[in-house]
Amino acid sequence: MTKYVYMFAEGNATMRNLLGGKGANLAEMVSLGLPVPGGFTVTTEACNKYYDDGQEIAPEVKEQILEALKKQEQLSGKVFGDPEKPLLVSVRSGARASMPGMMDTILNLGLNKEVVEGLAKLTDNPRFAYDSYRRFIMMFSDVVMEISKDHYEEELERIKEREGAKLDTDLTDEHMKEVADRFLEIYKEHKGEAFPQDPTEQLLLSIEAVFRSWNNRRAIYYRRMHGIPGDWGTAVNVQEMVYGNMGETSGTGVAFSRNPATGENQLYGEYLMNAQGEDVVAGIRTPEAIDHLNDLMPEVYQEFHDIAERLEQHYGDMQDLEFTIENGKLYVLQTRSGKRTATAALRVAVDMVESGMLSKEDALLKIDPSQLDALLHPTFNPDALAKATPLAKGLPASPGAATGIVTFTADEAYEEHQNGKQVILVRTETSPEDIQGMNVSAGILTSRGGMTSHAAVVARGMGTCCVSGASECKIDEKAGTLTIGDKVFKSGDWISLDGTSGNVYEGQIETQKAELTDDFKKIMEWSDEFRTMKIRTNADTPADATTARTLGAEGIGLTRTEHMFFEADRIFAFRQMIVARDVEAREKALAKILPIQKDDFVGIFEAMKGLPVTIRLLDPPLHEFLPSEPEQVKALAEELGMEEQKLQNIINDLHEINPMLGHRGLRLAISYPEIAIMQTEAIIRAALEVTTDEYPVIPEIMIPLVSEEKEIEFVRDVIVKRADEVIRESGKKLDYQVGTMIEIPRACLTADRIAMHADFFSFGTNDLTQMTYGLSRDDAGQILETYYNEGIFENDPTARLDRAGVGKLMEIGCELGRKTKPELKIGICGEHGGDPSSIEVCQELGFNYVSCSPFRVPIAKLAAAQSALKQREDKAHMTPTTV
Amino acid sequence: MTKYVYMFAEGNATMRNLLGGKGANLAEMVSLGLPVPGGFTVTTEACNKYYDDGQEIAPEVKEQILEALKKQEQLSGKVFGDPEKPLLVSVRSGARASMPGMMDTILNLGLNKEVVEGLAKLTDNPRFAYDSYRRFIMMFSDVVMEISKDHYEEELERIKEREGAKLDTDLTDEHMKEVADRFLEIYKEHKGEAFPQDPTEQLLLSIEAVFRSWNNRRAIYYRRMHGIPGDWGTAVNVQEMVYGNMGETSGTGVAFSRNPATGENQLYGEYLMNAQGEDVVAGIRTPEAIDHLNDLMPEVYQEFHDIAERLEQHYGDMQDLEFTIENGKLYVLQTRSGKRTATAALRVAVDMVESGMLSKEDALLKIDPSQLDALLHPTFNPDALAKATPLAKGLPASPGAATGIVTFTADEAYEEHQNGKQVILVRTETSPEDIQGMNVSAGILTSRGGMTSHAAVVARGMGTCCVSGASECKIDEKAGTLTIGDKVFKSGDWISLDGTSGNVYEGQIETQKAELTDDFKKIMEWSDEFRTMKIRTNADTPADATTARTLGAEGIGLTRTEHMFFEADRIFAFRQMIVARDVEAREKALAKILPIQKDDFVGIFEAMKGLPVTIRLLDPPLHEFLPSEPEQVKALAEELGMEEQKLQNIINDLHEINPMLGHRGLRLAISYPEIAIMQTEAIIRAALEVTTDEYPVIPEIMIPLVSEEKEIEFVRDVIVKRADEVIRESGKKLDYQVGTMIEIPRACLTADRIAMHADFFSFGTNDLTQMTYGLSRDDAGQILETYYNEGIFENDPTARLDRAGVGKLMEIGCELGRKTKPELKIGICGEHGGDPSSIEVCQELGFNYVSCSPFRVPIAKLAAAQSALKQREDKAHMTPTTV
Repeated sequence: MTKYVYMFAEGNATMRNLLGGKGANLAEMVSLGLPVPGGFTVTTEACNKYYDDGQEIAPEVKEQILEALKKQEQLSGKVFGDPEKPLLVSVRSGARASMPGMMDTILNLGLNKEVVEGLAKLTDNPRFAYDSYRRFIMMFSDVVMEISKDHYEEELERIKEREGAKLDTDLTDEHMKEVADRFLEIYKEHKGEAFPQDPTEQLLLSIEAVFRSWNNRRAIYYRRMHGIPGDWGTAVNVQEMVYGNMGETSGTGVAFSRNPATGENQLYGEYLMNAQGEDVVAGIRTPEAIDHLNDLMPEVYQEFHDIAERLEQHYGDMQDLEFTIENGKLYVLQTRSGKRTATAALRVAVDMVESGMLSKEDALLKIDPSQLDALLHPTFNPDALAKATPLAKGLPASPGAATGIVTFTADEAYEEHQNGKQVILVRTETSPEDIQGMNVSAGILTSRGGMTSHAAVVARGMGTCCVSGASECKIDEKAGTLTIGDKVFKSGDWISLDGTSGNVYEGQIETQKAELTDDFKKIMEWSDEFRTMKIRTNADTPADATTARTLGAEGIGLTRTEHMFFEADRIFAFRQMIVARDVEAREKALAKILPIQKDDFVGIFEAMKGLPVTIRLLDPPLHEFLPSEPEQVKALAEELGMEEQKLQNIINDLHEINPMLGHRGLRLAISYPEIAIMQTEAIIRAALEVTTDEYPVIPEIMIPLVSEEKEIEFVRDVIVKRADEVIRESGKKLDYQVGTMIEIPRACLTADRIAMHADFFSFGTNDLTQMTYGLSRDDAGQILETYYNEGIFENDPTARLDRAGVGKLMEIGCELGRKTKPELKIGICGEHGGDPSSIEVCQELGFNYVSCSPFRVPIAKLAAAQSALKQREDKAHMTPTTV
Repeated sequence: MTKYVYMFAEGNATMRNLLGGKGANLAEMVSLGLPVPGGFTVTTEACNKYYDDGQEIAPEVKEQILEALKKQEQLSGKVFGDPEKPLLVSVRSGARASMPGMMDTILNLGLNKEVVEGLAKLTDNPRFAYDSYRRFIMMFSDVVMEISKDHYEEELERIKEREGAKLDTDLTDEHMKEVADRFLEIYKEHKGEAFPQDPTEQLLLSIEAVFRSWNNRRAIYYRRMHGIPGDWGTAVNVQEMVYGNMGETSGTGVAFSRNPATGENQLYGEYLMNAQGEDVVAGIRTPEAIDHLNDLMPEVYQEFHDIAERLEQHYGDMQDLEFTIENGKLYVLQTRSGKRTATAALRVAVDMVESGMLSKEDALLKIDPSQLDALLHPTFNPDALAKATPLAKGLPASPGAATGIVTFTADEAYEEHQNGKQVILVRTETSPEDIQGMNVSAGILTSRGGMTSHAAVVARGMGTCCVSGASECKIDEKAGTLTIGDKVFKSGDWISLDGTSGNVYEGQIETQKAELTDDFKKIMEWSDEFRTMKIRTNADTPADATTARTLGAEGIGLTRTEHMFFEADRIFAFRQMIVARDVEAREKALAKILPIQKDDFVGIFEAMKGLPVTIRLLDPPLHEFLPSEPEQVKALAEELGMEEQKLQNIINDLHEINPMLGHRGLRLAISYPEIAIMQTEAIIRAALEVTTDEYPVIPEIMIPLVSEEKEIEFVRDVIVKRADEVIRESGKKLDYQVGTMIEIPRACLTADRIAMHADFFSFGTNDLTQMTYGLSRDDAGQILETYYNEGIFENDPTARLDRAGVGKLMEIGCELGRKTKPELKIGICGEHGGDPSSIEVCQELGFNYVSCSPFRVPIAKLAAAQSALKQREDKAHMTPTTV
């Protein structure tokens, strides 16, 4: 029979998956001989079984719980429900990963009318007994029966007011008894039946409630944010109560073994005397700093200090501990790895390595790569921020802090920036035409669009702060007003954005630049030492390329050429090209763009001197480059010297029902080879101009959207023909590569054929994910919301790579590609390239590199190192046991 | 070294892939001892090598050709280029599959100034010699040098006119010499150099030209129409010339071993005396029926008659032969399986089985299933058609013939039909709102949209004749005019459509109904005997269901429920449902639809009594049900009693950038479970109403667009809950199934998980193909055109299943699905379900059934039988040789 319940003494720290983090650590502490109140853990498997069985605790699980309870009675010499020697317990959740505050806890369980009186007698402390009882009634009502705490707290306040008591501790034992009686009445009013008196019934209902809390809305949200799978389930810990509220030699507190804000190696925390844990959090009484305990109870302090140090050593990580002092005796109730700021995380890692406590490998594995983001972007001055109140909240689309004057169009932003102003671009949503204005803005605010909207994606690429989808912001671009509540902002008014939280503030808030600390540099060095994948960047401009290089990029994995066409000096020629009705007219227009485009590439090649650069041929459908509003169409028609109706007809012809599945990518290069020829020529000429013997440029020309071998064969021929001509004419030598994006399911499925014509593969997981799911991220907003709420999706597959579906296609693509060319260079250039969990998949599949936006390069480096280390570990474990 | 050239005596009929059909059959006839002029075949591999080598004949291939030529000289005792004993040859294409008239032929090769004189002397027939020479010059110019034949024919006409000659045969030998001389001059005028005199050069250039002709535009088009892969290549046959133009005891002809129009068992063909093959085709002189040859040259006739019979017996199929009589001696130049009408195909098959010549299996394998289509639809009376001239040509979107009066809107069509008129619906393109009008029309004509446009798909489903994308037709729906050239048609004018050819005719042309012959029924019976897959139909109405049942459908594989919502009695309630802002209002609107929808299902269940019926829940995005034109929006707002702007806002909110990847399918059922609940209730209630002990109804509820296990789990729960409630309330017993469409790549990749919640899988290959290719068929028109022209695609993957990509995903889906449920029922309900080559894939993957539009049921039956037979054969061949 499956074992669903473990006494603490039966477990240890390696059983985290089964016992949850809290349960495993309690067991470990018991085995270390630390003062831990006794108890047992109901496993995560029991939780999953509970859901599988239609939310019911199966008889065999119930039986094991009661058996464990029996054992705990024997160990403690106390008996559940016995007024003479009552056993009281806490019931707490404990998942595999820590999810602080997301699930539920019940304390003082086991009390009823008789037991509370017994406890009063036994402790000679009726105030304590009734205080515990009223707390239990309220918690049980809230957590198990979903009766709001408010009803109880109002009643408590009423009695305190009546008695003129400021604090709970000002109430007498008689008052506390009255409170408890009133609470029992409130319960009956709401449930229509009396509060359950049978402690065993209380226990089973509470365990069930903790199981249920695994799927409450905030837990689901937390899991999505942190990539925790819903099928892990939570364990439940049932532990004998010890009491911090027994009087002035009792107390309770929490502490970190190091400072979680700075990483400084010094015990850090706070405590309250004569209180239970919830009081510390509730903030009614102000807790004391942990140092003071040294003055009050020096022996207890020293014992705790030593335990904290010992646990840190034992786990090799900074610990977050909960403790209770009952009548002068110390108990440790919990230990876990402490959450910490990015700064602290790096500091702790470096310190622990330097002190010899951890190896570099272990230290790296303990840092959450996504935390690094916070260190790479400007932040608000904390003092200035403390005085500001957010007016609205949008999505934290691109991190950092920004302050500037409101502008409503890309042109306005550009002009004001030319005038030396710091600007925020405020738009309903952005489009590719806004690129120049976005480029000069300190921050971008949109009222529509999600985390993967145009504004969000482009801003992240640029490292520009962006708040997207702030629906409280009513933006009237024509009138030039931004209205939030009853505040109206016009062009020139100051606002501030926090792209890390999504907050929007009124006025100017001072920002401070990000600085890369020595700790940061050291962590990067160590990452470089262990990772096996290269880290490239997605960069469309020399400025982006330079930023990325500073942050450690080892090449460019994706230069999109379409943004270039929107710039003022060429958009007109490009539009002439689009409306041209024959090849000659198109070529004439392209000839105007050629030298400008060549200069773009020269800038990028110079910035990346000596490093590889992948340039993707034009990808988006042509209609994206033409206006849609009648006024703009009219203006463009005049500019082009053509009839408005004729231009409108061309625009109508280019219209597509599903543009994502339409005429774009290499389909353009096949319909209009002259575009690919021009781009090839620009790339090769630029490379010839920049290349030197010392720093040879080896351009990698990337063909987007292949789905069939013959497509790439065709386009490759076009490219090679022109490239070789240009090289021959130059009389110089130049190597170049021609590869392709793998972003259509069929490309993965026929990768063996496609690889015959490709020098490299770069997985475009943005489109690949959308096509594999049949879900357009432009249209997914409402669907995803519903899916999260119903627990159908746990996270957005366009942000976190879906291993089961998209990952399987990628696996097929890699295997087939390398079957044809064992040394095929494989990388990724979708948004996933900067996501740690996705990087792990890339490592697993044997990628040569990942490419991400410049500001995610450090994150990718650390994540790649971690992935490599994990893989090494997995392989080491596999060797002896598997075939 | 690879052997690229085979003497006829070295080959046989089984070497078709290497030698092409013509070459293999020539070799076979040689081995049978038939009178075949000698020669050799350059293989299809040589053709592929020619293309691989950049369109050049490799030295080793050249060498082998010259060697074979030497051998042929020895065998014939003649010498290439020797005026004393000249060897002359024909050079003809010959692919694996017959592609009549698509590629090029050159006759009389080997002639030059000296040889022609030698030939004149040798034969004592200068007229013959110069006639042959001038023919050779013209053919070589046309085929090898791309100089238009017109230049030559004009010159010949000029000389004939000058001499008052009516026929070529009226010209004297002097005239012929003059013609040949003039032809040489014309050649020089166009090429700037003299006609090549070296026979070897002539030969190699001609072989190259035949290779090239494999990729001429009409050959590519033919291959696409017939599903012939471009990488097969063509072989080239070089054969000693024999001459039908040597005088009155010479002649040439073609004949079929049976009548190719009716299938009657009787030699059928025609011939011309004193002529070469091209004269028979050219139609300047009228050929004689083959019977007459019996009077003229009874021995030759008898010999030919016997050869035809012997070859038919030998190949077990009706033969199409070419022959030449040279000075009274018969030569057979070619034999192949004869093309025949559908009627003839069935007749021949039945006759051959009944006469014991073929087994049923072999007979079935010889019929082209797609030919059956012609037998199932009305056709024009041939006499009436002979008098009509087509005004325009569109795409043959849905077969059959139709005549009726022009109507420009669905409402107009409906009204005129109510008035007892026969109507043709004429629209730029159709949309789902037109469904009722389409339903009553005899034919549908659109000026836009391809073979898979809305009009085409719906019309095929209904079995209604449709010509789509007839771009010459200018349709002004507002003005109510259809303009073709300078003809203008108004409402009420008669036109006629041929959906099999795509032709549009003026006026009323008499049509005749299709009748199912006894041969047809017999072939269907035999198909039923051998096929292992069931054939179901896609039917949305009781009428469709009845039609399909008559044609042999064994159930419904797809009932789309969305068409139902467009009907006049419910569209309003459905729109109320869409614009409802809360669940109650939605449920209220749905309650109005419930009884109507239930009646729909009752009708279908009754029509399919005793056979399974799969009903798909609502699939398209909701915006498809709302109007887009401002006027219509205004009208609907009034009808709904809501502000126009409010309705417009709802429409805007529902707008999607990529609707194919948007909020539809089971995503609707998750957002609005009340819709799925209403549909479930309607289905179950209908089933309860119709079901009897004798004919139990087992409804199969199909969930569209699954991509993730938890989606189907959710929707299945919703369905099962309501279904079980309704059944329980009824007090009756009813079995039902819940399955899903597999139409998203991720569904294939995670089919093991999805199968846990599905009673059946039905592959929706329309969407699956589009997502696997990343290509929307709504937007693919121009792309496909370019792709065909560049040889990138050989056919439309939405019409013919792509085995390499989409098929691989399906294979994964089947394997994973059956891993979870070995007995999982698997079918297909996309357009591919009626396509023979796609049906073969379904057989290979072990499908239980295919489902197709009613009129394709017989085609599917035959194709399924063929697939089963082929599979049986493949397995039989595999047993002894593979592991």
